[in-house]
Amino acid sequence: MPEDSTHTPTMVTCTAPVNIAVIKYWGKRDKDIILPVNSSLSVTLHQDQLKTTTTVACCRDFVEDRIWLNGKEEDINQPRLQSCLREIRRLARKRRSDEYSTVDVSVLSYKVHICSNNNFPTAAGLASSAAGYACLVYTLAKLFGVEGELSCVARQGSGSACRSMYGGFVQWKMGEREDGKDSLAEQVEPETHWPELRVLVLVVSADKKAVGSTSGMQTSVETSCLLKYRADSVVPGRMDEMISAIRKRDFAAFAELTMKDSNQFHATCLDTYPPIFYLNDVSRRVINLVHRYNCHYGETRVAYTFDAGPNAVIYTLQNHVSEFVQVVRHFFPTTSNGGQFLKGLPVPSATISDDLKNAIGMEPLPKGISYIISTKAGPGPCVEEDSNHHLLGSDGLPKKTV
Amino acid sequence: MPEDSTHTPTMVTCTAPVNIAVIKYWGKRDKDIILPVNSSLSVTLHQDQLKTTTTVACCRDFVEDRIWLNGKEEDINQPRLQSCLREIRRLARKRRSDEYSTVDVSVLSYKVHICSNNNFPTAAGLASSAAGYACLVYTLAKLFGVEGELSCVARQGSGSACRSMYGGFVQWKMGEREDGKDSLAEQVEPETHWPELRVLVLVVSADKKAVGSTSGMQTSVETSCLLKYRADSVVPGRMDEMISAIRKRDFAAFAELTMKDSNQFHATCLDTYPPIFYLNDVSRRVINLVHRYNCHYGETRVAYTFDAGPNAVIYTLQNHVSEFVQVVRHFFPTTSNGGQFLKGLPVPSATISDDLKNAIGMEPLPKGISYIISTKAGPGPCVEEDSNHHLLGSDGLPKKTV
Repeated sequence: MPEDSTHTPTMVTCTAPVNIAVIKYWGKRDKDIILPVNSSLSVTLHQDQLKTTTTVACCRDFVEDRIWLNGKEEDINQPRLQSCLREIRRLARKRRSDEYSTVDVSVLSYKVHICSNNNFPTAAGLASSAAGYACLVYTLAKLFGVEGELSCVARQGSGSACRSMYGGFVQWKMGEREDGKDSLAEQVEPETHWPELRVLVLVVSADKKAVGSTSGMQTSVETSCLLKYRADSVVPGRMDEMISAIRKRDFAAFAELTMKDSNQFHATCLDTYPPIFYLNDVSRRVINLVHRYNCHYGETRVAYTFDAGPNAVIYTLQNHVSEFVQVVRHFFPTTSNGGQFLKGLPVPSATISDDLKNAIGMEPLPKGISYIISTKAGPGPCVEEDSNHHLLGSDGLPKKTV
Repeated sequence: MPEDSTHTPTMVTCTAPVNIAVIKYWGKRDKDIILPVNSSLSVTLHQDQLKTTTTVACCRDFVEDRIWLNGKEEDINQPRLQSCLREIRRLARKRRSDEYSTVDVSVLSYKVHICSNNNFPTAAGLASSAAGYACLVYTLAKLFGVEGELSCVARQGSGSACRSMYGGFVQWKMGEREDGKDSLAEQVEPETHWPELRVLVLVVSADKKAVGSTSGMQTSVETSCLLKYRADSVVPGRMDEMISAIRKRDFAAFAELTMKDSNQFHATCLDTYPPIFYLNDVSRRVINLVHRYNCHYGETRVAYTFDAGPNAVIYTLQNHVSEFVQVVRHFFPTTSNGGQFLKGLPVPSATISDDLKNAIGMEPLPKGISYIISTKAGPGPCVEEDSNHHLLGSDGLPKKTV
């Protein structure tokens, strides 16, 4: 019995990437529409390793907006979700009066079902909200036929989500306006610009969840005088330096500034009252290891950066990645040989010299790092053309197979 | 057979205290004569618990200057030791032309033997150089009959030593002059000013020695833009606030500023390149414990401060000390009941409520803290009148009993 087409959900599925900042975003000057106290810059990671997939369906029969995240239904009334839904619908209605509207406007009055999954475990401690909101906004826009600048909408879901709207190297310009219209992400260079750049996510075995970034950055804005100084007087120069290092593919400059900016972000967390700690003893060992590794070679071959958690993200170049992975294996030996220590892009095996081991000179720490995700820079959000990949079934509910 | 008196060493023994900064000194603007980038302020700890004892002997028969530290002969030619010896001898010669010189001037041409011991283990991780140089300068001054301002000499041995030249609450004014003549310690209030103030040194079981403070602070001056901002724009206001809190015996204000300044100092260490870490996971647990303890009571009853190592120094008031010690015992249980966990001033036993335990809500960490030294504010350097306490024998060599 064929269904009446108006009762069949209209459905779009898209994917969006994680991004890792090299000039950090920490602190809002406007909490409601999420305007930052400083500009920031990130590398978009490849979706082959880390991505969010989101299906949005709309149908005249849906009685309410609903959302499922990683298999669990969540509250659709969260203010930031509502901001994104409202903004996209507003842009779609505005577009309706424009010339090339191909969208059935009735769709805009329908309720939506949203289903979103990550291809990486939450335990990886990667900020999934950036990929999540970028994917939501991108998918809603495709469903409603909204084109053009969308980072401004994603920003209102989660600040750093605006940077996940583009591939490669992306800056979030803080802007000056009170309405946030100039607080946007822009691609600095596409992912093809620097193919040798490689990324390793070192997933640290953490005991428990630290202070969340939303409340943490607010406390920092209110209490850390060093954060204010950083935002006003340090970051503007660093943005210029970072863009220049990326344009020139100057790895040493890129790496050193990345490390300094990660450290300065964590310094402002420590200057917060009460202080916020995201780095733990394993994080600090990774930091020391990287500096000793670089020192041994007399050049900066590897950089670390840490977000609001103990996991290290390593930037390095193609020709150093296999040795550095072996260094990590040596100094953070796994006890279970069963589990896969290295996930993602293959890395050739390598041996490391005793000279190098001695230069690093640390006691190996078993189980400090759970596993490594090997990846690289990648493109921005994409439409998933294969309808088999929809996360929602024709009944508008999450497929059981997920 | 009576000795010829000119062959008998002239000998003086003095003691000097440790001090713990509440506004931190980190960074020199002049490395040679030790001028700081900012003023600082400390509490002098009581010598009943923590002191350095130094005997200086001089004798026409001594063929060279010699020094023994904690039972081991050390190199007398260290530049900072030489600075102190040279300065004191210069002041003594200058004094010779003044009216009240009671000192045999020939003594000034004799070589000296110096013997110095701490009554606390080096493993306690307390900056022994402050007490050590304060004691050396004070003892040399007594031997050579030098009176008046001596903190300027002690400063040239070890910056923070100048603050150990006074008891109670002591500020080191950074000064402005290039010759350092106005970079001096001054007593803000004597130790009798705030008798309820109590101090607990929580000795953390550290794995190994971190970056030394001399090289660490130099790297910070060269690389941390946050340190420069702190020194120029934050510390001046904090000095005024801290002096005011001490004068008013306003514990909450004193405690909060102490914690904020410790955190900011460690933040500048993290902003150093490569970053310097002195806090470890145990230090961070102590910090969290203190904030949760204060939060439970809705008032600031306890403060932490950390120097260039993982040990916590706790400031609290008499009426909270026994409960807080019990809290530390509970969350950092000792495994060996044999060793003494609490040293120094007696602390009555106390019980802690389940409410408080739940409010702190941390898993107890066995062996995180080795022991506690319980003490309070105390006086400045003193002459040891009992000649039995000389560390050098009549032969000018360290006594074997030490």
